[in-house]
Amino acid sequence: MTKKEKEEKIGKKKITFKIDKEKNFSKWFSEIVAKAELADLRYNVKGFVVFAPWSVLVMEKMYDAFEQELQKQMHLPCYFPSLIPEENFKKEAKHVSGFKPEVFWVTQAGNKKIEKLALRPTSETAFFQLYSLWIRSYKDLPFKRYQRANIFRYETKTTHPFMRSREFYWLEAHDCFASKEDAEKQVQEDIAITEKIMHQKFGIPSIPFRRPEWDKFAGAIYTIGSDVLMPDGKLTQQPSTHLLDQGFAKVFNIHFKDEKGEKQFVWQTCYGPCISRIFASLIALHGDNSGLIYPFFLAPIQVIIIPIFTAKNKPTVLKKVKEVEKKLTKDDISSMIDDREIAVGEKFYYWEMKGVPLRLEIGEKELKGKLTLFLRDEKKRKRVSLAQIKKEGLALDRRLRKKADSAFEKAIVNVKNFDELKTALKNKKIARCNFCSIDKKGERCAAVVEKELLASVRGVRADKKEKAKGKCIFCSKKAGCVVYIAKSY
Amino acid sequence: MTKKEKEEKIGKKKITFKIDKEKNFSKWFSEIVAKAELADLRYNVKGFVVFAPWSVLVMEKMYDAFEQELQKQMHLPCYFPSLIPEENFKKEAKHVSGFKPEVFWVTQAGNKKIEKLALRPTSETAFFQLYSLWIRSYKDLPFKRYQRANIFRYETKTTHPFMRSREFYWLEAHDCFASKEDAEKQVQEDIAITEKIMHQKFGIPSIPFRRPEWDKFAGAIYTIGSDVLMPDGKLTQQPSTHLLDQGFAKVFNIHFKDEKGEKQFVWQTCYGPCISRIFASLIALHGDNSGLIYPFFLAPIQVIIIPIFTAKNKPTVLKKVKEVEKKLTKDDISSMIDDREIAVGEKFYYWEMKGVPLRLEIGEKELKGKLTLFLRDEKKRKRVSLAQIKKEGLALDRRLRKKADSAFEKAIVNVKNFDELKTALKNKKIARCNFCSIDKKGERCAAVVEKELLASVRGVRADKKEKAKGKCIFCSKKAGCVVYIAKSY
Repeated sequence: MTKKEKEEKIGKKKITFKIDKEKNFSKWFSEIVAKAELADLRYNVKGFVVFAPWSVLVMEKMYDAFEQELQKQMHLPCYFPSLIPEENFKKEAKHVSGFKPEVFWVTQAGNKKIEKLALRPTSETAFFQLYSLWIRSYKDLPFKRYQRANIFRYETKTTHPFMRSREFYWLEAHDCFASKEDAEKQVQEDIAITEKIMHQKFGIPSIPFRRPEWDKFAGAIYTIGSDVLMPDGKLTQQPSTHLLDQGFAKVFNIHFKDEKGEKQFVWQTCYGPCISRIFASLIALHGDNSGLIYPFFLAPIQVIIIPIFTAKNKPTVLKKVKEVEKKLTKDDISSMIDDREIAVGEKFYYWEMKGVPLRLEIGEKELKGKLTLFLRDEKKRKRVSLAQIKKEGLALDRRLRKKADSAFEKAIVNVKNFDELKTALKNKKIARCNFCSIDKKGERCAAVVEKELLASVRGVRADKKEKAKGKCIFCSKKAGCVVYIAKSY
Repeated sequence: MTKKEKEEKIGKKKITFKIDKEKNFSKWFSEIVAKAELADLRYNVKGFVVFAPWSVLVMEKMYDAFEQELQKQMHLPCYFPSLIPEENFKKEAKHVSGFKPEVFWVTQAGNKKIEKLALRPTSETAFFQLYSLWIRSYKDLPFKRYQRANIFRYETKTTHPFMRSREFYWLEAHDCFASKEDAEKQVQEDIAITEKIMHQKFGIPSIPFRRPEWDKFAGAIYTIGSDVLMPDGKLTQQPSTHLLDQGFAKVFNIHFKDEKGEKQFVWQTCYGPCISRIFASLIALHGDNSGLIYPFFLAPIQVIIIPIFTAKNKPTVLKKVKEVEKKLTKDDISSMIDDREIAVGEKFYYWEMKGVPLRLEIGEKELKGKLTLFLRDEKKRKRVSLAQIKKEGLALDRRLRKKADSAFEKAIVNVKNFDELKTALKNKKIARCNFCSIDKKGERCAAVVEKELLASVRGVRADKKEKAKGKCIFCSKKAGCVVYIAKSY
């Protein structure tokens, strides 16, 4: 620890944060993770990080929001074991080849060698073994279960805290239906959950893309990945939802008797919001050069109260401050009084960096009448009554969402040829263009994108129909679709 | 599946449950786990079970209650990796020898051999590595962190669903203090949390015992284990709290500068409520011969509403039923209308078996005036107004707690010699007696208990002082303490 850090730790010096997020997002991200104490990267297993209270408190609220919505949509929670026997894992050929290089294996217990157990990289093969025992009749369908779980993948790509690490935190829903049609409806419902929770509640816009054939989940007919735009112009896949082919149902023997008494295999979907990665998007999208900005909806402390007093009015100010805190608690608003013996300005900087959305400054002027409220996003003060606080919080969340929406919209540009595409990517844009096909036959054109531009074809929009006119900008064959191309994590 | 089971599944036959819990607790427990769909034991890894929605919804509420209380007591949540490098694990000699036979080891990733990583059997050695980086000054103390996590132990004893399995669900708090005195206060606070949450909220009484020397946590000065009495007369250890010696602090180098600027090692405690095991006690203590009884505080459905109608009054009854449900939701009471097309009596049996604490029966008589409420624990009906429901729920919880308290009190008997002890254990009692010492020198007497009676010395009470008069009932030396002896899980 340097002298400066030491002084900051014990509160002698202002903790400030000032890094240009637009110019150097990667540095900004690393620094805010450290400064705001979101995670510690010094754990002594490569690719594994320790998540600290200031991120965990928010991730827990994210879990709550998703779980409430999943339960509303008739999903029930369960806990499946973290260990999956190799035999389950091997049953579905595409699945095993997709995940095999990434699996951590348990091979020993105490001093004994045991049969290999996979630390779940995803839980289809654990769930489905039981589904074959649980599902009997069409009356059992739809059958929807989910779990909150941590997942293990031996990532070979560079790991980033929250974005990609070897253990991460997610929710996984595994659903079964009587028909392909019903399953496809579920895929649409999953997309709606993403919109409702991630966009409406957390202020994180995303576009659901139907992924190209070569980029889908191992064992799926198709995959819809919702992409979020990060400030460096790269996309990151957030919740993905998959329509499975009947491969799993057949090898795990998940069937039911239909209304005529005939045996049918189920149709399946799975949906996986990765909470730790959504958290990365949250801080990346909303933060600014002074640090984090947490939405009011998610902030562990929604209002920080700073008493400003002189020796003379100290008792009255402190009394007022406590009254205000009590009233906020009563209104279900989480608040905290910062009564540390440090300068007021230091407190301001500190809580701005920590991303607390609202700050109440309470001094002589506020003893009677209105309070002074500082809005973290606009960095503006305004005079409000106590009853207005919640409304101000909700308004702040709307502003964060709008700002993120507008950045996303502006980033999309139409390109008509390879040069325009190159320029667009250079300028951190998302390129929209005509493309031959996201079926297998388009893979060669996509390979050009990956090799020459270090970018990828994200797929076609799943939320609206976009019809291609003209030719694929790579092979000049008749375009079959409109795709979006971008760099990605 | 037998024909009977099949018919039950599709709702043709009454699902009833009638097993004498007192006479055959073990059978009762297994049957209710299966019938009420709490867990499925058919997962294909030995000792690992699948927890089903009807238990998970309750365990999630248990987590909430504990986490809220821990946070109130200034603990902050974090997420630590599930994998711990062998080197951390080996650092503390007593710890490694205590846990080594129980550890699952990850040795392979993809096709690569990797350095051995332990699947956490407990997380001291993960937390403490970071604590040495986080704690610097006396101003950082007390330092309290916890996580909710699943834990892995290669149990060689017989596994039981919820009671003991190879993966289980717990909370672990790891705290650091400036002095042994402060740490001991935390141990008392942990005992208070157990009382407040487990006893006051869940209705599960326990006695905190200071464990004998030979039965403490590997690396502790002493361990307080809170024992719960199961209906078969066996005790089960519920939350335990440990005052650690400074072994961990020294090998992990967790020190701080005190007010004089001098380097000191921290004093540590850890506390671990095992949610899945507490759930086992919950169903065991409160259930009866008709099935589960969930406390109102924890029930996923607090009130089941059964419409009782004729062809004529069906619309009015259904309208009333919906009004009642709406009002309950508004009052934050979770309810559900059972509108399945099966006989009313079947619904009664089904929800009694599932343990829903309150049942509203709504028919012609209830259209005007009071409602008919069935109390699951007393199996009595009474007429109440809608506004009384919550009060009735709270009263039910108090009755469950009192009943459990009284069973525990009655089970404790004083014994004066080996024969009385033998008889007491045979009668499923907890024997209270004079004992030489719970220090090392008492181990020989305790060995007699284990070998000849298949029971164990649970320790001395930590919640009140009990002074021994007379001689140890085994070795006839002067008794140093009063201990409790019982069979245990």
